[in-house]
Amino acid sequence: MGHHLDEVSGPARVAAPGEDIGRQELALAARNHGLPLEALRHDITPPGLHYVMTHYDIPYAEGSPWRLSIGGRVRRPRVLGTAELTSFPAVTQRVTMECAGNGRALLTPRPVSQPWLVEAVGTAEWTGVPLRTLLAEAGVGADAVDVVFTGADHGVERGVEQDYQRSLPVAAALGEDPEVLVAYAMNGAPLPPQHGFPLRLVVPGWYGMAHVKWLRGITVIDIPFEGFQQVAAYRLRQDAGEVGEPVTRIAPRALLVPPGFPDFMSRSRVVREGAVPLEGRAWSGWAPVSGVEVSTDGGREWREAALDPAGGHRWAWRRWHFAWTATPGRHTLSARATDAEGNTQPLRQPWNRGGFANNLVQDVPVLCVDQD
Amino acid sequence: MGHHLDEVSGPARVAAPGEDIGRQELALAARNHGLPLEALRHDITPPGLHYVMTHYDIPYAEGSPWRLSIGGRVRRPRVLGTAELTSFPAVTQRVTMECAGNGRALLTPRPVSQPWLVEAVGTAEWTGVPLRTLLAEAGVGADAVDVVFTGADHGVERGVEQDYQRSLPVAAALGEDPEVLVAYAMNGAPLPPQHGFPLRLVVPGWYGMAHVKWLRGITVIDIPFEGFQQVAAYRLRQDAGEVGEPVTRIAPRALLVPPGFPDFMSRSRVVREGAVPLEGRAWSGWAPVSGVEVSTDGGREWREAALDPAGGHRWAWRRWHFAWTATPGRHTLSARATDAEGNTQPLRQPWNRGGFANNLVQDVPVLCVDQD
Repeated sequence: MGHHLDEVSGPARVAAPGEDIGRQELALAARNHGLPLEALRHDITPPGLHYVMTHYDIPYAEGSPWRLSIGGRVRRPRVLGTAELTSFPAVTQRVTMECAGNGRALLTPRPVSQPWLVEAVGTAEWTGVPLRTLLAEAGVGADAVDVVFTGADHGVERGVEQDYQRSLPVAAALGEDPEVLVAYAMNGAPLPPQHGFPLRLVVPGWYGMAHVKWLRGITVIDIPFEGFQQVAAYRLRQDAGEVGEPVTRIAPRALLVPPGFPDFMSRSRVVREGAVPLEGRAWSGWAPVSGVEVSTDGGREWREAALDPAGGHRWAWRRWHFAWTATPGRHTLSARATDAEGNTQPLRQPWNRGGFANNLVQDVPVLCVDQD
Repeated sequence: MGHHLDEVSGPARVAAPGEDIGRQELALAARNHGLPLEALRHDITPPGLHYVMTHYDIPYAEGSPWRLSIGGRVRRPRVLGTAELTSFPAVTQRVTMECAGNGRALLTPRPVSQPWLVEAVGTAEWTGVPLRTLLAEAGVGADAVDVVFTGADHGVERGVEQDYQRSLPVAAALGEDPEVLVAYAMNGAPLPPQHGFPLRLVVPGWYGMAHVKWLRGITVIDIPFEGFQQVAAYRLRQDAGEVGEPVTRIAPRALLVPPGFPDFMSRSRVVREGAVPLEGRAWSGWAPVSGVEVSTDGGREWREAALDPAGGHRWAWRRWHFAWTATPGRHTLSARATDAEGNTQPLRQPWNRGGFANNLVQDVPVLCVDQD
């Protein structure tokens, strides 16, 4: 009759038919937040508008020195302070990051977790030390398989008490394209607490779960990593019993800057008759975005949008724009991204039990009001 | 058979018994966000963790010059650029801001609007020009009644298309205690877009609706202001037909830094047996906080917490702390603030149709697990 973690920590589940958002999902939605979509106008997301999702609490890391240990199957294990990290040559990369669960709350049935609609995205310039530089210094053993990253965030999930941990295959950790960073700055300033102060991993092109925040340990191991966030969470499964496929890179997606103005409560968009310029952003972690199509009639007809130059930022979203003339009535606007490997967005929902890597085309209902 | 705003913009309503959070409330929760409560540890809320609530879209104010007009019943109407504002002597004030709707989603029945639990709060240092300096320069007419503040945020609400506007009585606008600011900096940096870039009003001690963001107009009028946000929204009413009382200053509230660690999904807190230091913050817009009591047994017994010095920051929250020894089992922790005018927090919910100015004592359920 003792008291154990399973009293407050249950298994994953899918919402029942017609089940609305409950108190637990609301508590997650109140603390985590998406990008207000009008902020897609900014090339680089201003501070505080980038999406944030934390599994447990944001660690309080003020005032005491931070240590990053590099160990396991390496020849020269090390413990580095943040000042030592900044003594390495710095690299800055512009990266669009997206939560693997983006779109989850629009799925039927709805996996019960952080209830994102489509807004779990943001773009920042991250500055830090290439991971491969640190691993080369440490001397990775020939038998290395995975590199495990440990954050300082601690909690319980489905009954398992844990520090947040994720791994990368050693080839990805040592890779140059994308080049993984141990980052200490975001948009030229120290990381904000919620983005991993003082250190986080940045894995360009991968969903957010790979970018371990509050990074305190890098461990090279000679077997595949089987931590909770690697083998229990963040897998693509239709049934709970499956091993599933790992969630890795970001599927292509385009979003619109919402045109016109909103109704406060319904968030419906209102425009007036005439020219309504449309714009938005598109990205893919698999290959550069090669095209964006726009529909203004609920997906019946699609036309090519104009793409702005990528500007050398392979891992950042790309701006697109499209001229639309609104007529009185109701319209549904959509944009659909395709990348250079031919990956595109589905018109009917993909579904998996975790609600991961969903990239269903966005629908934006718009009311064009009469002139009067 | 035309198309009009009322197609997408309905009246205010209260949720039906048992009605969970719907898509519209979720869309608000996904874009607005509260303070993750562990961030109560910081005296000043770090960038991006301060609560944010916007009625319509965040205006895009980059690249073009901003103009603030001061007019109406003044002798010398003016239009000021941001550079002219920064040429006045600057004042910096540390201010705790809270949304008037904080606590709304915990009410029964629940007013349907932005569904805050208890986290719609934050503290920042705001720098700007005292409003009374600007009004003295303009020369307020002897017949002045209200001062109206107009933001650049535009939308529709309950069928009324509008720029966001709020007013203050002329005595409050000219007052020294609190001293109202036209602020251009937050924590020493330009305002972030979501906090009103480039200019906002700061009204220390008042709920957030008074702190008009994206400020572009100050208009002195000789009759009481009857704009939507003054007479339709932000009133304390039991029935829809009442005139109601205006929402003004912040009622006292104390919140806890959540002890221990969370379960990801339930957000339940877990601690281990033994000493668990409790801490939190308390504030009131009516008078300085004079005491905080803590209960660790669901409100049966209350004991005084220790208050940190106020440090001269009258309008900022005050830190408190309390020593607790946890024993295995379930506990409910609460803190209750009282101010120097004797205002305190109710133990049973206050209720009004808008869900405004609710300051019910917070309950924090905690599980203390067995050592094993």
